[in-house]
Amino acid sequence: MDELERIAALTARFGGGGPGVIVGIGDDAAVLRASGDLVATVDVAVEDVHFRRAWAPLERLAYRAFMAAASDLAAMGAEPRGALLSLVLPASVGDDGFLELVAGVERAASTIGCPVIGGNLSAGTELSIGTTALGATAGEALRRRGARPGDGLFVTGRPGDRALGLEVLLRRGAPSGSAAARALVEAWLEPLARVDAGRALVGRATAAIDVSDGLLMDLDHLVGASGVGARVELGAIPRHDDFEAVASELGVDPLAPLLGGGDAYELLFTAPPDVDVSDVGARIGSIVAGSGVEVVDRGVTVRRPATGHRHFG
Amino acid sequence: MDELERIAALTARFGGGGPGVIVGIGDDAAVLRASGDLVATVDVAVEDVHFRRAWAPLERLAYRAFMAAASDLAAMGAEPRGALLSLVLPASVGDDGFLELVAGVERAASTIGCPVIGGNLSAGTELSIGTTALGATAGEALRRRGARPGDGLFVTGRPGDRALGLEVLLRRGAPSGSAAARALVEAWLEPLARVDAGRALVGRATAAIDVSDGLLMDLDHLVGASGVGARVELGAIPRHDDFEAVASELGVDPLAPLLGGGDAYELLFTAPPDVDVSDVGARIGSIVAGSGVEVVDRGVTVRRPATGHRHFG
Repeated sequence: MDELERIAALTARFGGGGPGVIVGIGDDAAVLRASGDLVATVDVAVEDVHFRRAWAPLERLAYRAFMAAASDLAAMGAEPRGALLSLVLPASVGDDGFLELVAGVERAASTIGCPVIGGNLSAGTELSIGTTALGATAGEALRRRGARPGDGLFVTGRPGDRALGLEVLLRRGAPSGSAAARALVEAWLEPLARVDAGRALVGRATAAIDVSDGLLMDLDHLVGASGVGARVELGAIPRHDDFEAVASELGVDPLAPLLGGGDAYELLFTAPPDVDVSDVGARIGSIVAGSGVEVVDRGVTVRRPATGHRHFG
Repeated sequence: MDELERIAALTARFGGGGPGVIVGIGDDAAVLRASGDLVATVDVAVEDVHFRRAWAPLERLAYRAFMAAASDLAAMGAEPRGALLSLVLPASVGDDGFLELVAGVERAASTIGCPVIGGNLSAGTELSIGTTALGATAGEALRRRGARPGDGLFVTGRPGDRALGLEVLLRRGAPSGSAAARALVEAWLEPLARVDAGRALVGRATAAIDVSDGLLMDLDHLVGASGVGARVELGAIPRHDDFEAVASELGVDPLAPLLGGGDAYELLFTAPPDVDVSDVGARIGSIVAGSGVEVVDRGVTVRRPATGHRHFG
């Protein structure tokens, strides 16, 4: 396929638009009918930085890349409205690979109701999948700031599972090992942006962030922006039943993926004591006066592991 | 600088926000107060595909990349509201290179009043500069469709100059040659997204597109979307006084950059006979019934050159 044929394939697949989409693929830019405040974020998955092609079919890697971008909409409590897809495609991807990528994006987009309304194709030597996710808030957007001493600290899902699944892929080059190890790889491959949770927290949570760089680092951002401190109870952090067993199987300290592992795409949030958010997440600690994050395991303070960071907006 | 220091540098430079920016850099996503319809587009400049580092300082290459994205806002008649910057940075760029890139983005952003409100940093092996440009329309967005037989066909600026300047760089590897050749390279390096022209055309033009893939190919998109044909008078297309001389200096057919050259970032638009748009662009032809584009040079039809195409939204 030449570029025009690829664009035709994209238009055929995504041309349908969605609610509020005035202009989709096929003009100089997309147009969305505005309602509420606009929330906008971009995320890029780069081959051999964020994923390896040997790990999974391109369909699944593209699905994952799209969900990673949408997770930032979730963290703001926004309803997805549309996405721009920006692909840099080396010759090695080919037409079949291109169609796989598009299929994965479509699966993610339809899962969370975020139609692809435009984008960009480019040649290059390094495969990258860039996603601009656009959303709207019904009320005030959830922010990192706003947590207050006395608030509870909560998380959706199991924030360390995906990082441990990634560890399986990094060390073994493919999904392999125990059934639990393979289940964690599956979790890494299939994030679900917590859009419903985010929307349910608008007007209830005092602060929120998505766990993309590691629980402690993201919590550090949240408490730093809020001007407070936090205390986390290690044993309260939800994890796979065999989390420690898989860590042991890999020879890694389970605290590294649990506290410092990225790619979780779960929401970390705070809520006042009189607001019940047990329908959205599990309580893992409290917001306290002061600054910084203390992690406690049966009375013993756990040191903060080193973590990575990529995102600035 | 590590990632956090780079993000701090971006926040220091772009943290000021702008009108309607509720949340800028520093949260999970940016938030814009909506007014009018939202216009969204993304463009990516990839090293050795769209530019070479030897051609100019990174400051200028980044400026250019930003303007290329903003040109699609101009083509829709939108007022810029904010941009997301997505950089994939190989180690060879370094801290100085990073700061140069940021300075070029800032110069472009402040030139057209489009604050950087968020973005993404990633490592990689191939430098790419991705820009998501967000804008709002005061009235109905300009579209590619809407041209009617009898409309005049117009263009801003000199749509082939930048393509010929690029030809100088491609053939010589640096700005060199006659003063005119160097002036055309300068034009390629310094596009100005035609935001003011686009806004001035809302409610006056019947259709518009930006010339990014070549005058004929973009006109073909416009007439295809409008269900009409067009007739272009070759001699009416504005060009540098020494356009033919520089083409001759390079040994290229001047029709190739004039009709088929990309990177123009000028607006091609149509307007009814009773609407005066002479303040915005020069008339280069007419819209006719039928389909396709005929280019006439003193009564002789000129064949369409082959052109490239990259953009799908």
